[in-house]
Amino acid sequence: MPETHALRREQLRAAVAASDVDAALITTLVNVRYLTGLASSNAALLVPADGPPVLATDFRYALAAERDCADVQLLIARPVETALTELAIGQGMSRLAFEAQEMTVERHTALAATDGLTLLVPFGRRVEELRVVKDEGELSLLGRACAITGWAFDQVVPRIRAGMTERELAVLVERAMVDGGAERPAFDTIVASGPNGAIPHHSPGDRPFEPGDMITIDCGARYGGYHADMTRTIVLGAPTAWQRDIYGLVAQAQLAGMEAATDGAEVADVDAAARDLIAAAGHGEHFRHGLGHGVGLEIHEAPMVAPARPGRLGDRVPITVEPGIYLPGQGGVRIEDTLVVRAGSPARRDLLTTTQTVTPGELLVIEP
Amino acid sequence: MPETHALRREQLRAAVAASDVDAALITTLVNVRYLTGLASSNAALLVPADGPPVLATDFRYALAAERDCADVQLLIARPVETALTELAIGQGMSRLAFEAQEMTVERHTALAATDGLTLLVPFGRRVEELRVVKDEGELSLLGRACAITGWAFDQVVPRIRAGMTERELAVLVERAMVDGGAERPAFDTIVASGPNGAIPHHSPGDRPFEPGDMITIDCGARYGGYHADMTRTIVLGAPTAWQRDIYGLVAQAQLAGMEAATDGAEVADVDAAARDLIAAAGHGEHFRHGLGHGVGLEIHEAPMVAPARPGRLGDRVPITVEPGIYLPGQGGVRIEDTLVVRAGSPARRDLLTTTQTVTPGELLVIEP
Repeated sequence: MPETHALRREQLRAAVAASDVDAALITTLVNVRYLTGLASSNAALLVPADGPPVLATDFRYALAAERDCADVQLLIARPVETALTELAIGQGMSRLAFEAQEMTVERHTALAATDGLTLLVPFGRRVEELRVVKDEGELSLLGRACAITGWAFDQVVPRIRAGMTERELAVLVERAMVDGGAERPAFDTIVASGPNGAIPHHSPGDRPFEPGDMITIDCGARYGGYHADMTRTIVLGAPTAWQRDIYGLVAQAQLAGMEAATDGAEVADVDAAARDLIAAAGHGEHFRHGLGHGVGLEIHEAPMVAPARPGRLGDRVPITVEPGIYLPGQGGVRIEDTLVVRAGSPARRDLLTTTQTVTPGELLVIEP
Repeated sequence: MPETHALRREQLRAAVAASDVDAALITTLVNVRYLTGLASSNAALLVPADGPPVLATDFRYALAAERDCADVQLLIARPVETALTELAIGQGMSRLAFEAQEMTVERHTALAATDGLTLLVPFGRRVEELRVVKDEGELSLLGRACAITGWAFDQVVPRIRAGMTERELAVLVERAMVDGGAERPAFDTIVASGPNGAIPHHSPGDRPFEPGDMITIDCGARYGGYHADMTRTIVLGAPTAWQRDIYGLVAQAQLAGMEAATDGAEVADVDAAARDLIAAAGHGEHFRHGLGHGVGLEIHEAPMVAPARPGRLGDRVPITVEPGIYLPGQGGVRIEDTLVVRAGSPARRDLLTTTQTVTPGELLVIEP
């Protein structure tokens, strides 16, 4: 998609031209990838207000950059940000903007000492803001990542039984995602069983599943650089009353959150649509994280959907909706889907994470 | 190992007391883990010159911190570095050192504005320096990571044949490591076949192996947080003269590098011991990366073993030795082991990465 990347660079160039610097130095790797297509562990991009952008990387990525980024000027040099800054100064640019959210104080101190630099100011999250609204090419990759995730989950559910450990299940899910075409898991899979379900980010351990356990599985595939995110909670054997109660409440809250996720909705209102239901049932203190977040080239990116956050959703913005109830020492439930907000009336959204074996509205009971 | 962590914190406290600040704020996550045992994606540690250290993390890691870090004062709060800074100021500490190699300019700007702070200065890489020399507990974890790596490699070698893709082999290696007890791969496995062998950090793709290919496999297991690193190059079918030549040269250089890795040796000399052999054979320009690096809680850590780098090796310092020759468009060879330098005379080192199927000194020929 070289035209896509060129279009993104042009949007950024316009932002640079409208500011009081000569060029922006982009050092956040995922932003460099967004603007050029190059996936590298060492790269930076110079975007002048006036003139062609220059991509710098080291010799390890030279062949990939020549192949994938044929429409960008290329500089093979280390350190990449110093090389680009010296190039800019050599071309008469002395006022640079940089990404203060990525650059360390140590690197900034070295860069600020470059001869000929007259201004080095934070650029803000301009690229991150561009990344919030996805194009159809991105949504296609994200959709594929989510489809792989749902498929993999469905392959694994029939194999869950008492005695299997959290870690064994996490490994099965991750292997199924790779078998289904994922380039890798989007993040470390969470499997939290029984009392561990009360820990939102539990790291899967050697605990074997026991009859009566609820099991929360939070997983996602990465495909073409895009990250899926999905959570399902099931129960091993007949659920008790408290398990049915909190599952039903989370399912209801999740549905309310998804329905509130419309073009133009305030993110704080979307969060509240789910949170208020949980709080009204007396579980406000048991749901202490945000309702969701944007997904894309990063697993967590803007917009954050949480209380008191500013901003609105819009057309082609993918987010997760993932309320949970966590009862310390007892267990927990989380249900999460990834969806894409769409413009139009009546309000539309595309649900990307679907599973055949589990319908979020109904607690799946697995025979132990 | 709570005593171990307490000892490390005491070493750091002494460094703080010898400096002109009241406390150090440790924000590099792997350094926090080294000093407390807590593996978290959101944590920081305050180490006062005088008084007990305080570990801050958020509610997601509260249970893990209470369980694993019972001997450290705990603060559950967000953002962790702000909470610790305010705590320090409340206790009369106004001069703080911070880790400039980790903290972003954005976070630093916010932190520097904290009321009551009179000094905020870089602390340097004090914790990274402590981490260079491992204790026997660490070496035991690293040894296990390396043993799993060698075992996994040996499981997979008999399955290599023409038609298998780079990616398929990478997946097999990673699964074997996890089956062997790895918590996860230490890094994305590299499988580079045929002409791709000329790319040191090639990302495994859909290229099927062909008779005549050399195949470079760079892999490692992570175990208990410690990272193994090992590379082997094999050939599919009878090797040609140039393949034998560069393999023999790299094997000879690798052996020379390992023998030079002794207690007290200058890292630049260790690099030269291998590099000079390759350069003397006319391949200097085809070996453009450093000879090796430290390994531990990170896959790449101090000391870097490369030309013009300062510093010496010492007792209980693990490093990799990994020369390579990369011929653009043609192919390449890299051979890498992880070893631990030991004190004593005659010079000693422990080789941690061993394989039964491949002896680095001899090019393994696999029937296609």
